[in-house]
Amino acid sequence: MFSLDTYIAEKARIINDALDRHLPPACERPGKLHEAMRYSVMAGGKRLRPVLCMAAAEAVGGRVENVMMPALAVEALHTYTLIHDDLPCMDDDDLRRGKPTAHKVYGEATALLAGDALLTLAFEWMARATPESPWSASVLAGELAEAAGSRGVIAGQVEDLAAEGREPDADMLSFIHSRKTGVLIRCAVRLGAMTAGASQADLAVFSEYGDKAGTAFQIADDILNATSTPEQLGKPVGSDAARKKLTYVAVHGLSRARADAARLVQEAAEALAPLKGDTRPLAAIARHVAERQR
Amino acid sequence: MFSLDTYIAEKARIINDALDRHLPPACERPGKLHEAMRYSVMAGGKRLRPVLCMAAAEAVGGRVENVMMPALAVEALHTYTLIHDDLPCMDDDDLRRGKPTAHKVYGEATALLAGDALLTLAFEWMARATPESPWSASVLAGELAEAAGSRGVIAGQVEDLAAEGREPDADMLSFIHSRKTGVLIRCAVRLGAMTAGASQADLAVFSEYGDKAGTAFQIADDILNATSTPEQLGKPVGSDAARKKLTYVAVHGLSRARADAARLVQEAAEALAPLKGDTRPLAAIARHVAERQR
Repeated sequence: MFSLDTYIAEKARIINDALDRHLPPACERPGKLHEAMRYSVMAGGKRLRPVLCMAAAEAVGGRVENVMMPALAVEALHTYTLIHDDLPCMDDDDLRRGKPTAHKVYGEATALLAGDALLTLAFEWMARATPESPWSASVLAGELAEAAGSRGVIAGQVEDLAAEGREPDADMLSFIHSRKTGVLIRCAVRLGAMTAGASQADLAVFSEYGDKAGTAFQIADDILNATSTPEQLGKPVGSDAARKKLTYVAVHGLSRARADAARLVQEAAEALAPLKGDTRPLAAIARHVAERQR
Repeated sequence: MFSLDTYIAEKARIINDALDRHLPPACERPGKLHEAMRYSVMAGGKRLRPVLCMAAAEAVGGRVENVMMPALAVEALHTYTLIHDDLPCMDDDDLRRGKPTAHKVYGEATALLAGDALLTLAFEWMARATPESPWSASVLAGELAEAAGSRGVIAGQVEDLAAEGREPDADMLSFIHSRKTGVLIRCAVRLGAMTAGASQADLAVFSEYGDKAGTAFQIADDILNATSTPEQLGKPVGSDAARKKLTYVAVHGLSRARADAARLVQEAAEALAPLKGDTRPLAAIARHVAERQR
């Protein structure tokens, strides 16, 4: 009997241990910078992206140990986006995962540089990836750079800021969602599969799964911001509406948001059918991201 | 007869053409972000780092075309450091190369993200490097990430901010200089040499040259800030002293700064002796960086 809770807990423990081992120690100069990097990375995220990376590798018969560096890289990169998004000139958030944001604890300059350092560290870690044929470490690094760059994650962030206060617009929302969250979730899944030597045909499956699970995740995020309590979420709720953020709930309403998330999760799970390995974790994770309470 | 002016002008033209071709077009969404990236990259820098990268490749018989992607990557990465250094929470500078800084023109959020995007793009470009044996693209990318990371360029920036207003301290100065500027100049030279297939023994030569030329460059920068006119420099002069920045001039005085820069240039040129290719450009560039007027 497969238990997702056990699966995620076990993988998160491995990932947290590895992050702790691979991040520069806080005792190493410049100590405050390394402390800030560790503070944000070890703040207790769900490790969704590295878990997805590992689950994708397992779905084509790969080993978790071999996918560790790409998995850590995706998490470091994700953490940099959170630190920079929280800065005063961006979303200006004081809380993240129930704790003060990096710039509240370490000041703006150190938070900015800790984000820069984590982005850079992600590529140092990608350079140490050892993917199976037909993939090379540099192809994988290029894939992550494209996903994170001005046509990916950063494009989503730019348009998200630009959309604040404007009329709800479904096209704009789709552009933002596919990039701001979707592209990195898709990339995490693809990197895991590629590291394990997935074929081009398999890779198309992972792309479809990643697109759908990523969109479901973002819709669930918007639902939570609109309906959750601050205790559940670890940060203020209703902040999207107050700031007139462009969200799935604002554009399509709550009941359609819930229906679409459920449909996408179903489609994501069905997309996995052609794969030969164990796809239960990926299917369960997709359900979990859409149904989570925080 | 070798002319450095001609050499630099020719290489800078090739580099500028390639940057224009490889940067995302401003007409592509998000247009404001891509415009900001282009504004900062095309603001007319000296292209010292990519020129060094090419000159290093030529010093071991490599071809300029083959070294293009690492050369562009180093320039993109350098530009990101300038954009982030200029932000209000860092050095808070309004002018760079005689033009308003990115955040003055595009706002803080876009400038921050343009910097992030250029750092990311540097690694997208590194993934496309095609180095000669025994080097691989991922080894080169790892080298750049280490140079740029929390133990390299970013360490220098953190300690530079921390040192403002403190007593002049030679050890601290050496830590900052070797990282903030030196490490990326050294890396540019090494990446060029590695792309051209330099041996491990040759690489030690390039490291020594890069260390010495890089330090000479930083000393010259400090001398210029203390002695130049705003017209020569394209930015306010004396700003280091006003801000009580830790500079070579503040620690060692102007005449020792000049003598040390001259000595380092001489040693950098002498270090090149074991190489078989044309080392005149590298020797001339080292002299040039120490003697330049802006």
